Amino acid sequence: MKQSAVMRSTLGRLPLYLRFLQSLDITENENISATVIAKYLGFGEVQVRKDLNAVSGAGRPKLGYRTDELIKRLTEVLGRNDVKNAVIIGAGKLGNALLEYNGFIEYGLLITAAFDIDESKAGITEAGKQILPLSRLEEFCRKENVKIGIITVPAKTAQQICDRLVACGIEAIWNFAPCTLTVPEEILLQQENLALSLAHLKLQMNNA
Amino acid sequence: MKQSAVMRSTLGRLPLYLRFLQSLDITENENISATVIAKYLGFGEVQVRKDLNAVSGAGRPKLGYRTDELIKRLTEVLGRNDVKNAVIIGAGKLGNALLEYNGFIEYGLLITAAFDIDESKAGITEAGKQILPLSRLEEFCRKENVKIGIITVPAKTAQQICDRLVACGIEAIWNFAPCTLTVPEEILLQQENLALSLAHLKLQMNNA
Repeated sequence: MKQSAVMRSTLGRLPLYLRFLQSLDITENENISATVIAKYLGFGEVQVRKDLNAVSGAGRPKLGYRTDELIKRLTEVLGRNDVKNAVIIGAGKLGNALLEYNGFIEYGLLITAAFDIDESKAGITEAGKQILPLSRLEEFCRKENVKIGIITVPAKTAQQICDRLVACGIEAIWNFAPCTLTVPEEILLQQENLALSLAHLKLQMNNA
Repeated sequence: MKQSAVMRSTLGRLPLYLRFLQSLDITENENISATVIAKYLGFGEVQVRKDLNAVSGAGRPKLGYRTDELIKRLTEVLGRNDVKNAVIIGAGKLGNALLEYNGFIEYGLLITAAFDIDESKAGITEAGKQILPLSRLEEFCRKENVKIGIITVPAKTAQQICDRLVACGIEAIWNFAPCTLTVPEEILLQQENLALSLAHLKLQMNNA
């Protein structure tokens, strides 16, 4: 099955499966059943089967999944062996919150630095992450092989930042600025809207 | 069509349609076509039709949509006439970023205050939002008729905060803490994982 077929909700649970499997003391060729995994993680059995089938194919009847193969596939799908570097442009409140967030590495994503036009923000954060002056963006991205740019600047400068990132050889953009960006066809672009999850929650309240 | 049938991607575009329609100088019974809307907003016509059909039913052939009815339906679906109050618990970097974010009101959501256990954080932010000591949570929620709680505290205190919010009569919880929360059946709970959008973007890079 293609990796792109993995649903967002499934993707959110994969690190939990991997952490659990890695915590086991396994010998070669050992099997594990969806029932055992479901019980340990407090998930439904049907959900566990669905999630694992999406990444590794169906378990075998009465035997379940080969634990070592499952670990291998989860590691692969989560991209743990192919860590990609990302940078944040805009070290305001949101940029800093993302810089501090620990969950990205679970998916093989490393935020290596944040950049800001305000050079007085440059320095090392409490969590040990670096904030650099925006003038150093191009040099840093090329040297550190940065592949993903996260834009948290105001809407009016977002396109300009986006163009600079593309010129640095970045392959994907995650845009938090409330505006539409134009990128060359080969660049992946994901528009984020923080309000949407909350808006969805509210829609459900209206329907309850 | 039920409001819950509105897709997340559609929901993200609805405020743009509403803003455009409200900017028009319309007289009663005036019609507007998907073609005109698509052209103005730079969207595809098929997408516009799909989005608008999801909220208001199909436009009429050759006539399009009644502008005033469309405005009425969009206002309704976006909950603009039924603003719900929300509070944030945890005025760290993420809590502050959400407190500062302007996009929630587009969906009839008003973040009225943030709370923090660290009383030294109490005060008014640059954007004029209030941060209060956590000890005032119950009093504030009851007085201000708060319906939604946004949890941005560390995982180890999230359940305790969640229980306090539920006891205050909150109806929905949006949880950013990286942990599973237990709530009574009637409470809506949405778990947020900031890493997921970026993880999805990376999966697409792997498949490119």
